Amino acid sequence: MSDPGDLLAQAWQHLARGVADRRAPARHPVLATVSPDGLPEARMVVLRAASESAGTLEIHSDSETPKVAALHARPVAALHVWVPKARLQIRMSAEVEILTGAQVMAQWEKVPCAARVSYGTEPAPGKPIAQAHDYAQPGDPARFAVLHCILSRMDLLQLDTPHRRAVYCRQDLWQGTWVAP
Amino acid sequence: MSDPGDLLAQAWQHLARGVADRRAPARHPVLATVSPDGLPEARMVVLRAASESAGTLEIHSDSETPKVAALHARPVAALHVWVPKARLQIRMSAEVEILTGAQVMAQWEKVPCAARVSYGTEPAPGKPIAQAHDYAQPGDPARFAVLHCILSRMDLLQLDTPHRRAVYCRQDLWQGTWVAP
Repeated sequence: MSDPGDLLAQAWQHLARGVADRRAPARHPVLATVSPDGLPEARMVVLRAASESAGTLEIHSDSETPKVAALHARPVAALHVWVPKARLQIRMSAEVEILTGAQVMAQWEKVPCAARVSYGTEPAPGKPIAQAHDYAQPGDPARFAVLHCILSRMDLLQLDTPHRRAVYCRQDLWQGTWVAP
Repeated sequence: MSDPGDLLAQAWQHLARGVADRRAPARHPVLATVSPDGLPEARMVVLRAASESAGTLEIHSDSETPKVAALHARPVAALHVWVPKARLQIRMSAEVEILTGAQVMAQWEKVPCAARVSYGTEPAPGKPIAQAHDYAQPGDPARFAVLHCILSRMDLLQLDTPHRRAVYCRQDLWQGTWVAP
Protein backbone atom coordinates (compact mmCIF):
# COMPACT_ATOMS: atom_id res chain seq x y z
CA MET A 1 0.00 0.00 0.00
CA SER A 2 1.71 3.20 -1.05
CA ASP A 3 1.59 6.38 1.03
CA PRO A 4 1.26 9.87 -0.51
CA GLY A 5 3.96 10.98 1.95
CA ASP A 6 6.58 8.99 0.00
CA LEU A 7 5.89 11.01 -3.13
CA LEU A 8 6.06 14.28 -1.18
CA ALA A 9 9.42 13.35 0.33
CA GLN A 10 10.70 12.57 -3.16
CA ALA A 11 9.53 15.98 -4.43
CA TRP A 12 11.32 17.86 -1.64
CA GLN A 13 14.51 15.92 -2.36
CA HIS A 14 14.36 17.10 -5.95
CA LEU A 15 13.70 20.70 -4.86
CA ALA A 16 16.67 20.62 -2.47
CA ARG A 17 18.84 19.22 -5.25
CA GLY A 18 17.66 22.06 -7.52
CA VAL A 19 19.03 24.61 -5.06
CA ALA A 20 22.38 22.84 -4.65
CA ASP A 21 23.06 21.59 -8.19
CA ARG A 22 22.98 23.73 -11.33
CA ARG A 23 22.25 20.67 -13.45
CA ALA A 24 19.32 19.33 -11.43
CA PRO A 25 15.89 19.59 -13.09
CA ALA A 26 14.41 21.60 -10.21
CA ARG A 27 17.10 24.26 -10.72
CA HIS A 28 14.84 25.98 -13.24
CA PRO A 29 11.14 25.91 -12.37
CA VAL A 30 8.62 27.61 -14.63
CA LEU A 31 6.91 30.41 -12.71
CA ALA A 32 3.37 31.26 -13.84
CA THR A 33 1.65 34.46 -12.79
CA VAL A 34 -1.38 36.51 -13.83
CA SER A 35 -0.61 39.86 -15.47
CA PRO A 36 -2.24 43.06 -14.17
CA ASP A 37 -4.74 42.75 -17.05
CA GLY A 38 -5.62 39.16 -16.15
CA LEU A 39 -3.58 37.18 -18.68
CA PRO A 40 -1.51 34.09 -17.82
CA GLU A 41 2.28 34.47 -18.08
CA ALA A 42 5.05 31.88 -17.68
CA ARG A 43 8.84 32.05 -17.64
CA MET A 44 11.79 30.09 -16.32
CA VAL A 45 13.39 31.16 -13.04
CA VAL A 46 16.25 29.94 -10.87
CA LEU A 47 15.44 28.20 -7.59
CA ARG A 48 17.59 29.80 -4.86
CA ALA A 49 16.24 28.21 -1.66
CA ALA A 50 13.75 25.54 -0.61
CA SER A 51 12.59 24.78 2.93
CA GLU A 52 10.53 21.65 3.44
CA SER A 53 9.85 22.50 7.11
CA ALA A 54 8.49 25.96 6.26
CA GLY A 55 6.99 24.93 2.90
CA THR A 56 8.67 27.84 1.13
CA LEU A 57 10.78 28.50 -1.97
CA GLU A 58 12.92 31.51 -2.87
CA ILE A 59 13.52 33.10 -6.26
CA HIS A 60 15.52 36.23 -7.10
CA SER A 61 14.42 38.79 -9.68
CA ASP A 62 15.11 42.21 -11.07
CA SER A 63 12.34 44.32 -9.48
CA GLU A 64 11.61 46.05 -12.82
CA THR A 65 10.46 42.90 -14.63
CA PRO A 66 6.86 42.25 -15.71
CA LYS A 67 6.73 39.25 -13.34
CA VAL A 68 7.27 41.51 -10.34
CA ALA A 69 4.61 43.90 -11.68
CA ALA A 70 2.26 40.92 -12.02
CA LEU A 71 3.03 39.80 -8.46
CA HIS A 72 2.45 43.30 -7.10
CA ALA A 73 -1.03 43.21 -8.67
CA ARG A 74 -1.77 39.58 -7.70
CA PRO A 75 0.68 38.05 -5.22
CA VAL A 76 0.04 34.45 -6.26
CA ALA A 77 2.03 32.10 -8.49
CA ALA A 78 2.14 28.57 -9.80
CA LEU A 79 5.49 26.79 -10.08
CA HIS A 80 6.19 23.80 -12.30
CA VAL A 81 9.07 21.31 -12.30
CA TRP A 82 9.44 18.18 -14.41
CA VAL A 83 12.00 15.60 -13.28
CA PRO A 84 12.62 13.36 -16.32
CA LYS A 85 14.45 10.46 -14.67
CA ALA A 86 11.86 10.13 -11.90
CA ARG A 87 9.04 10.82 -14.37
CA LEU A 88 7.72 13.19 -11.70
CA GLN A 89 5.75 16.38 -12.29
CA ILE A 90 5.82 18.80 -9.36
CA ARG A 91 3.13 21.49 -9.44
CA MET A 92 2.99 24.08 -6.69
CA SER A 93 0.70 26.98 -5.80
CA ALA A 94 2.11 29.82 -3.72
CA GLU A 95 1.48 33.18 -2.18
CA VAL A 96 4.39 35.44 -2.98
CA GLU A 97 5.98 38.17 -0.88
CA ILE A 98 8.22 40.61 -2.75
CA LEU A 99 11.16 41.65 -0.57
CA THR A 100 13.50 44.49 -1.58
CA GLY A 101 15.88 47.09 -0.16
CA ALA A 102 17.17 46.78 3.38
CA GLN A 103 15.23 43.52 3.89
CA VAL A 104 17.40 41.72 1.34
CA MET A 105 20.83 43.36 1.68
CA ALA A 106 22.24 40.31 3.48
CA GLN A 107 21.16 38.16 0.52
CA TRP A 108 22.54 40.67 -2.00
CA GLU A 109 25.94 40.48 -0.33
CA LYS A 110 25.99 36.74 -1.08
CA VAL A 111 25.20 37.17 -4.80
CA PRO A 112 28.45 36.60 -6.73
CA CYS A 113 29.67 39.71 -8.58
CA ALA A 114 29.26 38.00 -11.97
CA ALA A 115 25.60 37.31 -11.17
CA ARG A 116 24.77 40.83 -9.97
CA VAL A 117 24.46 42.03 -13.57
CA SER A 118 21.10 40.22 -13.70
CA TYR A 119 19.59 42.91 -11.48
CA GLY A 120 19.41 46.38 -13.03
CA THR A 121 19.42 45.95 -16.83
CA GLU A 122 19.01 49.29 -18.65
CA PRO A 123 16.60 49.74 -20.32
CA ALA A 124 14.43 47.52 -18.09
CA PRO A 125 13.77 43.92 -19.20
CA GLY A 126 11.21 43.74 -22.02
CA LYS A 127 11.72 47.34 -23.20
CA PRO A 128 12.33 47.75 -26.98
CA ILE A 129 15.89 48.37 -28.17
CA ALA A 130 17.25 49.06 -31.67
CA GLN A 131 19.83 46.27 -31.80
CA ALA A 132 20.06 42.97 -29.95
CA HIS A 133 22.85 44.13 -27.63
CA ASP A 134 21.77 47.73 -26.97
CA TYR A 135 21.53 47.34 -23.23
CA ALA A 136 23.73 47.73 -20.17
CA GLN A 137 23.89 45.63 -17.02
CA PRO A 138 25.38 47.82 -14.32
CA GLY A 139 24.05 45.67 -11.45
CA ASP A 140 21.98 47.67 -9.01
CA PRO A 141 21.22 46.52 -5.45
CA ALA A 142 18.10 48.72 -5.49
CA ARG A 143 16.72 46.49 -8.25
CA PHE A 144 17.35 43.21 -6.38
CA ALA A 145 14.12 41.51 -5.30
CA VAL A 146 13.61 38.26 -3.40
CA LEU A 147 10.37 36.45 -4.20
CA HIS A 148 9.47 34.54 -1.05
CA CYS A 149 7.01 31.85 -2.14
CA ILE A 150 4.82 30.43 0.64
CA LEU A 151 3.44 27.20 -0.80
CA SER A 152 -0.26 26.60 -0.25
CA ARG A 153 -0.65 23.44 -2.36
CA MET A 154 1.43 20.79 -4.11
CA ASP A 155 0.19 18.42 -6.81
CA LEU A 156 2.50 15.52 -7.66
CA LEU A 157 2.08 13.24 -10.64
CA GLN A 158 4.35 10.26 -11.20
CA LEU A 159 4.09 8.74 -14.65
CA ASP A 160 4.70 5.19 -13.49
CA THR A 161 2.57 2.44 -14.96
CA PRO A 162 -0.08 2.98 -13.75
CA HIS A 163 0.18 6.70 -13.00
CA ARG A 164 0.00 7.97 -9.40
CA ARG A 165 -1.09 11.46 -8.41
CA ALA A 166 -1.54 13.11 -5.01
CA VAL A 167 -2.48 16.57 -3.77
CA TYR A 168 -1.18 18.17 -0.55
CA CYS A 169 -2.37 21.36 1.16
CA ARG A 170 -0.78 23.51 3.84
CA GLN A 171 -4.12 23.79 5.60
CA ASP A 172 -4.24 19.98 5.94
CA LEU A 173 -0.65 20.01 7.23
CA TRP A 174 0.53 18.46 3.93
CA GLN A 175 -0.87 15.03 4.74
CA GLY A 176 -1.81 14.34 1.12
CA THR A 177 -4.69 12.70 -0.75
CA TRP A 178 -4.52 10.43 -3.76
CA VAL A 179 -6.43 11.85 -6.74
CA ALA A 180 -7.27 10.49 -10.18
CA PRO A 181 -4.44 11.28 -12.64
CA MET B 1 23.82 42.67 -37.67
CA SER B 2 21.46 40.02 -36.39
CA ASP B 3 17.80 39.88 -37.41
CA PRO B 4 15.00 38.92 -35.00
CA GLY B 5 13.60 36.76 -37.82
CA ASP B 6 16.49 34.31 -37.41
CA LEU B 7 15.52 33.64 -33.82
CA LEU B 8 11.87 33.18 -34.80
CA ALA B 9 12.76 30.66 -37.51
CA GLN B 10 14.83 28.75 -34.95
CA ALA B 11 11.88 28.67 -32.51
CA TRP B 12 9.51 27.26 -35.15
CA GLN B 13 12.05 24.57 -36.04
CA HIS B 14 12.08 23.48 -32.41
CA LEU B 15 8.27 23.50 -32.25
CA ALA B 16 8.04 21.37 -35.41
CA ARG B 17 10.58 18.96 -33.95
CA GLY B 18 8.48 18.76 -30.76
CA VAL B 19 5.53 17.51 -32.78
CA ALA B 20 7.58 14.93 -34.70
CA ASP B 21 9.99 13.68 -32.04
CA ARG B 22 9.01 12.41 -28.58
CA ARG B 23 12.44 13.28 -27.24
CA ALA B 24 12.58 16.88 -28.46
CA PRO B 25 12.33 19.58 -25.76
CA ALA B 26 9.29 21.20 -27.40
CA ARG B 27 7.38 17.90 -27.11
CA HIS B 28 6.26 18.92 -23.62
CA PRO B 29 5.45 22.62 -23.22
CA VAL B 30 4.20 23.96 -19.92
CA LEU B 31 0.69 25.36 -20.37
CA ALA B 32 -0.29 28.16 -17.97
CA THR B 33 -3.89 29.25 -17.53
CA VAL B 34 -5.94 31.29 -15.06
CA SER B 35 -8.41 29.30 -12.95
CA PRO B 36 -12.07 30.37 -12.76
CA ASP B 37 -11.25 32.03 -9.41
CA GLY B 38 -8.32 33.98 -10.88
CA LEU B 39 -5.34 31.89 -9.77
CA PRO B 40 -2.41 30.96 -12.02
CA GLU B 41 -2.08 27.26 -12.92
CA ALA B 42 0.65 25.43 -14.87
CA ARG B 43 1.06 21.87 -16.09
CA MET B 44 2.94 19.95 -18.77
CA VAL B 45 1.13 19.05 -21.98
CA VAL B 46 2.02 17.25 -25.20
CA LEU B 47 2.44 19.29 -28.38
CA ARG B 48 0.39 17.60 -31.11
CA ALA B 49 0.63 20.09 -34.00
CA ALA B 50 2.39 23.36 -34.86
CA SER B 51 1.75 25.56 -37.89
CA GLU B 52 4.18 28.37 -38.52
CA SER B 53 2.10 29.77 -41.40
CA ALA B 54 -1.07 29.95 -39.28
CA GLY B 55 0.73 30.73 -36.02
CA THR B 56 -1.13 27.97 -34.20
CA LEU B 57 -0.42 25.04 -31.89
CA GLU B 58 -2.58 22.06 -30.98
CA ILE B 59 -2.88 20.21 -27.68
CA HIS B 60 -5.20 17.35 -26.74
CA SER B 61 -6.93 17.07 -23.37
CA ASP B 62 -9.56 15.21 -21.44
CA SER B 63 -12.48 17.67 -21.43
CA GLU B 64 -13.12 17.06 -17.70
CA THR B 65 -9.78 18.44 -16.51
CA PRO B 66 -9.39 21.68 -14.53
CA LYS B 67 -7.38 23.15 -17.43
CA VAL B 68 -10.38 22.88 -19.74
CA ALA B 69 -12.60 24.41 -17.02
CA ALA B 70 -10.07 27.26 -16.75
CA LEU B 71 -10.05 27.76 -20.52
CA HIS B 72 -13.85 27.79 -20.66
CA ALA B 73 -13.82 30.63 -18.11
CA ARG B 74 -10.84 32.50 -19.69
CA PRO B 75 -9.85 31.24 -23.14
CA VAL B 76 -6.25 32.44 -22.93
CA ALA B 77 -3.02 30.60 -22.18
CA ALA B 78 0.72 31.02 -21.94
CA LEU B 79 2.99 28.27 -23.25
CA HIS B 80 6.60 27.77 -22.23
CA VAL B 81 9.38 25.71 -23.83
CA TRP B 82 13.06 25.61 -22.85
CA VAL B 83 15.50 24.16 -25.38
CA PRO B 84 18.66 23.34 -23.40
CA LYS B 85 21.14 22.78 -26.26
CA ALA B 86 20.13 26.00 -28.02
CA ARG B 87 19.83 27.81 -24.67
CA LEU B 88 16.56 29.16 -26.07
CA GLN B 89 13.46 30.03 -24.04
CA ILE B 90 10.26 30.14 -26.10
CA ARG B 91 7.36 31.95 -24.43
CA MET B 92 4.02 32.15 -26.22
CA SER B 93 0.66 33.80 -25.52
CA ALA B 94 -2.43 32.34 -27.14
CA GLU B 95 -6.17 32.50 -27.44
CA VAL B 96 -7.55 29.00 -27.08
CA GLU B 97 -10.54 27.40 -28.79
CA ILE B 98 -11.86 24.21 -27.17
CA LEU B 99 -13.06 21.78 -29.83
CA THR B 100 -15.02 18.63 -28.93
CA GLY B 101 -17.54 16.14 -30.31
CA ALA B 102 -18.20 15.93 -34.03
CA GLN B 103 -15.63 18.68 -34.71
CA VAL B 104 -12.79 16.43 -33.59
CA MET B 105 -13.88 12.92 -34.58
CA ALA B 106 -11.40 12.84 -37.46
CA GLN B 107 -8.59 13.61 -34.97
CA TRP B 108 -9.91 11.02 -32.49
CA GLU B 109 -9.72 8.35 -35.17
CA LYS B 110 -5.98 9.05 -35.46
CA VAL B 111 -5.30 8.71 -31.72
CA PRO B 112 -3.62 5.31 -31.18
CA CYS B 113 -5.74 2.91 -29.09
CA ALA B 114 -3.12 2.82 -26.31
CA ALA B 115 -3.30 6.62 -26.03
CA ARG B 116 -7.11 6.83 -25.94
CA VAL B 117 -7.10 5.87 -22.24
CA SER B 118 -5.90 9.42 -21.50
CA TYR B 119 -9.37 10.74 -22.33
CA GLY B 120 -12.13 9.65 -19.96
CA THR B 121 -10.50 8.74 -16.62
CA GLU B 122 -13.09 7.84 -13.95
CA PRO B 123 -13.34 9.52 -11.55
CA ALA B 124 -12.33 12.68 -13.44
CA PRO B 125 -8.71 13.91 -13.16
CA GLY B 126 -8.05 15.60 -9.81
CA LYS B 127 -10.93 13.92 -7.95
CA PRO B 128 -9.99 12.26 -4.62
CA ILE B 129 -9.62 8.47 -4.55
CA ALA B 130 -8.92 6.12 -1.62
CA GLN B 131 -5.87 4.38 -3.06
CA ALA B 132 -3.36 5.46 -5.69
CA HIS B 133 -4.74 3.19 -8.40
CA ASP B 134 -8.49 3.44 -7.70
CA TYR B 135 -9.38 4.77 -11.13
CA ALA B 136 -10.38 3.41 -14.52
CA GLN B 137 -9.43 4.61 -17.99
CA PRO B 138 -12.12 3.38 -20.36
CA GLY B 139 -11.26 5.91 -23.09
CA ASP B 140 -14.24 8.00 -24.10
CA PRO B 141 -14.44 9.91 -27.39
CA ALA B 142 -16.98 12.26 -25.76
CA ARG B 143 -14.19 13.37 -23.38
CA PHE B 144 -11.66 14.09 -26.15
CA ALA B 145 -10.93 17.82 -26.54
CA VAL B 146 -8.60 19.60 -28.95
CA LEU B 147 -7.16 22.86 -27.64
CA HIS B 148 -6.54 25.00 -30.70
CA CYS B 149 -4.06 27.68 -29.64
CA ILE B 150 -3.99 30.79 -31.81
CA LEU B 151 -0.74 32.51 -30.90
CA SER B 152 -0.92 36.26 -30.35
CA ARG B 153 2.65 36.85 -29.13
CA MET B 154 6.01 35.10 -28.92
CA ASP B 155 8.90 36.15 -26.68
CA LEU B 156 12.24 34.50 -27.43
CA LEU B 157 15.27 34.68 -25.17
CA GLN B 158 18.59 33.17 -26.19
CA LEU B 159 21.08 32.87 -23.36
CA ASP B 160 24.12 33.48 -25.55
CA THR B 161 26.82 35.77 -24.22
CA PRO B 162 25.52 38.42 -24.33
CA HIS B 163 21.85 37.46 -24.11
CA ARG B 164 19.47 38.25 -26.99
CA ARG B 165 15.72 38.65 -26.64
CA ALA B 166 13.00 39.55 -29.15
CA VAL B 167 9.23 39.89 -29.07
CA TYR B 168 6.89 39.13 -31.98
CA CYS B 169 3.16 39.89 -32.32
CA ARG B 170 0.54 38.57 -34.70
CA GLN B 171 -0.82 42.10 -35.16
CA ASP B 172 2.61 43.23 -36.43
CA LEU B 173 2.73 40.20 -38.75
CA TRP B 174 5.43 38.62 -36.54
CA GLN B 175 8.15 41.00 -37.72
CA GLY B 176 9.81 41.11 -34.29
CA THR B 177 11.49 43.72 -32.10
CA TRP B 178 14.62 43.32 -30.00
CA VAL B 179 13.98 43.98 -26.35
CA ALA B 180 16.23 44.19 -23.28
CA PRO B 181 16.73 40.73 -21.78
